[in-house]
Amino acid sequence: MTVKTEINVRYAETDQMKVVHHAVYPIWYEQSRTELIEKLGIKYCEIEKQGVMCPIAELNSKYISPARYGDTVIVEASVSKLTPVKIVFEYKIYRKSDETLLNTGSSVHPWTDTNIKLINLKKAFPKIYDTLLNNINKL
Amino acid sequence: MTVKTEINVRYAETDQMKVVHHAVYPIWYEQSRTELIEKLGIKYCEIEKQGVMCPIAELNSKYISPARYGDTVIVEASVSKLTPVKIVFEYKIYRKSDETLLNTGSSVHPWTDTNIKLINLKKAFPKIYDTLLNNINKL
Amino acid sequence: MTVKTEINVRYAETDQMKVVHHAVYPIWYEQSRTELIEKLGIKYCEIEKQGVMCPIAELNSKYISPARYGDTVIVEASVSKLTPVKIVFEYKIYRKSDETLLNTGSSVHPWTDTNIKLINLKKAFPKIYDTLLNNINKL
Amino acid sequence: MTVKTEINVRYAETDQMKVVHHAVYPIWYEQSRTELIEKLGIKYCEIEKQGVMCPIAELNSKYISPARYGDTVIVEASVSKLTPVKIVFEYKIYRKSDETLLNTGSSVHPWTDTNIKLINLKKAFPKIYDTLLNNINKL
Repeated sequence: MTVKTEINVRYAETDQMKVVHHAVYPIWYEQSRTELIEKLGIKYCEIEKQGVMCPIAELNSKYISPARYGDTVIVEASVSKLTPVKIVFEYKIYRKSDETLLNTGSSVHPWTDTNIKLINLKKAFPKIYDTLLNNINKL
Repeated sequence: MTVKTEINVRYAETDQMKVVHHAVYPIWYEQSRTELIEKLGIKYCEIEKQGVMCPIAELNSKYISPARYGDTVIVEASVSKLTPVKIVFEYKIYRKSDETLLNTGSSVHPWTDTNIKLINLKKAFPKIYDTLLNNINKL
Repeated sequence: MTVKTEINVRYAETDQMKVVHHAVYPIWYEQSRTELIEKLGIKYCEIEKQGVMCPIAELNSKYISPARYGDTVIVEASVSKLTPVKIVFEYKIYRKSDETLLNTGSSVHPWTDTNIKLINLKKAFPKIYDTLLNNINKL
Repeated sequence: MTVKTEINVRYAETDQMKVVHHAVYPIWYEQSRTELIEKLGIKYCEIEKQGVMCPIAELNSKYISPARYGDTVIVEASVSKLTPVKIVFEYKIYRKSDETLLNTGSSVHPWTDTNIKLINLKKAFPKIYDTLLNNINKL
């Protein structure tokens, strides 16, 4: 199960090295992650209103080749693991024009309530958990 | 009543023009505004917990000379107007090393509740309003 | 001559007021401005390589209603003035779903060389100036 | 060899989860890294002008407890490895008030020229390499 998000590099995302600043990539991951979750049948902004959050616990990123202003990049996000206590995502970022791989990464997100206390999603919100699980398994 | 906030330019704040990106200045204004309000006897993060917010309604900024990585800048924030319905701030940004004026600006902030509905601060939170007013007048 | 840029609000663009932080709007303006200039026959990243830049000299923004995570916004950018020494843009931002006006703004950009020295674009780069002027007049 | 950088959380750094957004931590790392390099006798903005850059190749971050608006955080940066081809940094972030550990991380940075081509720093810029090495060993 993968989603491909197309992003035009913003001028503000560059730094004086004339490449995209490295702190921008986690924001691109997040944008793609949002789309992926939605494709799995869950609107993240809706479940947050219901009291479920998935803050980040771990972030890993490898910078292979720089993205630049003028580039369109493709962010591929996928779920590598779903359990009642956490969800793990993987990312690949390509330049659209020539398919050069620019970056790979992953992030780990525990399920929490709105006070950022850990929850068991399967027990606390079985409907959300089942929707995610079923949609991942379908693919 | 003026506060002077010293900020070291962050690498991430530059863009490929090799200067600080213009969207960073409102963030510097905000940092100095926070310190100014605190000097006026109010911790912004505390009044927000009590139910008062002051979102921005208007922002104006003049970019005179660019700030660069390696620079330390001084942000001067002052209150130019306080009424029961809004507060207006003015800003000047200098480079510390040579006192070159880099930027001037202003921002208008209505008082609101946490649903971003307009309130009359003097009526709704007289103690906060009086603290601000008294501390501004003292100076 | 107007361009309409569609932007999905990013989670990272929100703040603890649960709305998009005000420093994000200038970045959205810029994204739309880039698309507008391209529609006028000029790729901004290309002219920068040729030695032309248009840094910002003035920014004005009115915040009418907040954008939120989950919103798609439309940024309308237009050129309100083009002269040999500067270009002025105007912006309107709407929520896509209900067409609520969220924000209006403008920005003034002098033409400069890569050292951020003012230039007369008509004299220094007549071809770029004429392309912009002709494409604005066509519309 | 460690540097401790004190940072007041900016409002703009929060997100609607009411905590600091995770993409801010790499920016804090970078601010502390800049100070650390300076303490090692090298001003990063100066060596970049001489033609040396150290872009990021790898970033790892563990988010233990959230930082919030109103917090002052301490970022501890240290060099865990210096070789002619790369430099590796480690980070710890604490809340100042109660010394709670909020985040740990690391980043790997190859030495490159301004075109982001890998270089051997010891061969290409022996003086810079020796300054760094001597100052690390002193400590």
